[in-house]
Amino acid sequence: MKSLLLTTAALLLIGAAPPKRLTPTDVVNAAPASAWKAIPADDLLVMDLKSGGRVVLQLAPTFAPVHVANIRALARGNYWDGATIYRVQDAYVAQWGLNDSDKGFPAGVTAKPPAEYTRALKGLSVKPLGYADPYAPGAGFVDGWPVAYSAKGNWANLAHCYGSVGVGRDLSPDTGSGGELYAVFTPLRHLDRNIAVVGRVIDGMASLSALPRGTEALGFYKDKSQYVPIASIRLASDMPASERPAFEYLDTMSASFARYLTIRANRHDDFYIHPAGGVDLCNVSPPVRKKG
Amino acid sequence: MKSLLLTTAALLLIGAAPPKRLTPTDVVNAAPASAWKAIPADDLLVMDLKSGGRVVLQLAPTFAPVHVANIRALARGNYWDGATIYRVQDAYVAQWGLNDSDKGFPAGVTAKPPAEYTRALKGLSVKPLGYADPYAPGAGFVDGWPVAYSAKGNWANLAHCYGSVGVGRDLSPDTGSGGELYAVFTPLRHLDRNIAVVGRVIDGMASLSALPRGTEALGFYKDKSQYVPIASIRLASDMPASERPAFEYLDTMSASFARYLTIRANRHDDFYIHPAGGVDLCNVSPPVRKKG
Repeated sequence: MKSLLLTTAALLLIGAAPPKRLTPTDVVNAAPASAWKAIPADDLLVMDLKSGGRVVLQLAPTFAPVHVANIRALARGNYWDGATIYRVQDAYVAQWGLNDSDKGFPAGVTAKPPAEYTRALKGLSVKPLGYADPYAPGAGFVDGWPVAYSAKGNWANLAHCYGSVGVGRDLSPDTGSGGELYAVFTPLRHLDRNIAVVGRVIDGMASLSALPRGTEALGFYKDKSQYVPIASIRLASDMPASERPAFEYLDTMSASFARYLTIRANRHDDFYIHPAGGVDLCNVSPPVRKKG
Repeated sequence: MKSLLLTTAALLLIGAAPPKRLTPTDVVNAAPASAWKAIPADDLLVMDLKSGGRVVLQLAPTFAPVHVANIRALARGNYWDGATIYRVQDAYVAQWGLNDSDKGFPAGVTAKPPAEYTRALKGLSVKPLGYADPYAPGAGFVDGWPVAYSAKGNWANLAHCYGSVGVGRDLSPDTGSGGELYAVFTPLRHLDRNIAVVGRVIDGMASLSALPRGTEALGFYKDKSQYVPIASIRLASDMPASERPAFEYLDTMSASFARYLTIRANRHDDFYIHPAGGVDLCNVSPPVRKKG
């Protein structure tokens, strides 16, 4: 097995001695149980594709409470029956929902939510990234989420990193209902503060990222026959207990996360010759894992 | 068509008036012919997949001359006959070549190239990004390439941005021959200065990014039956003139590129409410287009 790019597994594959210096994965694996926090079942949105793939999203009610309430009501009201993934734009997003539909919203949906593109920084406990961010005065982590912020302006926003999920909208003053969602394939930080980020994909991202790209403008599929049918979108809390997926995240205020962040910024295991001495917000990937 | 994410095309789709403020694409489209520079046919590596997809790479001899010379010799010597894409790791890379083969190199290949992970900054004309980079003291653009650098240390490196192509290697002191290459799905800046970047995908990236992800460690395909067969890897300069693809890039020292960079950092067209006021190196995407 020649010419690999990573370390621990690569070393195992080529049969060499184990690395003496910790990788980010080593740090995550060594974190005590107390450093992991369960994600509430009400914050887990489970999207099953008819093809068999499952995509699990974590919702972020702390950052976009009205949009998240909408998404829960849409799921509980079976709004997404017949929904599809209709847009897959390379190096940008996969987007799903009902697209051109005029279907009415179920009860409990706020048709015109406020622009939840930022929230107050006050009230949030931030673990600072420790390196400059070109998009905001500050960057760091809140409850497992990558966040940009301004102490002076008292605002904070969820950053558009790999797997972030946002709410499609028309031009302002439209803010999007939550009926059309997109997941991000690569950091799109220029969208920060311009759109409501409501969560992130924590499992099954490859069921979106490996889809054929749409050939129309903005990556829309040309023919409806190309649309990727969605079997169901449900809250984990509405699934039978025996079927419910469960996840937990590494507490970003924990000592384990601090070590993980340090090592992400200063890789010094066997593969690396020059540790970067820095890292950008979207290259930290707060750890999430299946529970149990 | 509801809930879009971009502007110019979206506005056309919904039939609204054209935007009054320029988008990055508007600036690129308005660049004069004199701002575009042809990419030499000797710097274009054309990879045709048996499935019909074509991936075109631009090589970077200014940054990794020995590795690039190797790649040219490998192509001319038909080294890659029977090559496949054997690794597709989500949020990381697609990697191709002969993998476990013990095939000898054709004439002209340096089996152990120097570690071309950086080169001297001196001699390069840099257009600075203008915003802090967490990975290096400086960041900017050289001849259309995203580059990180240190004036004090007199080094510069090609950055691992979306589409960047690097040389797979084993642990140091191995530097990789160029026989195994990878293309990057999302910025992997922590690899900068740890591996030879030899070019970037300038066309057909979706033929790599939409491939099924490998399920083994590091995204290797489990079974050889999953390997994606490559029909040929050729230099454009070795193709019949009538079949040769031709590309050009926007001169990163041009006034048009300066405007493009400013607008990438300060989007203010109809979709955007809060221009970021900054941008990171990998989010600038120096423009490349088919010629003619």
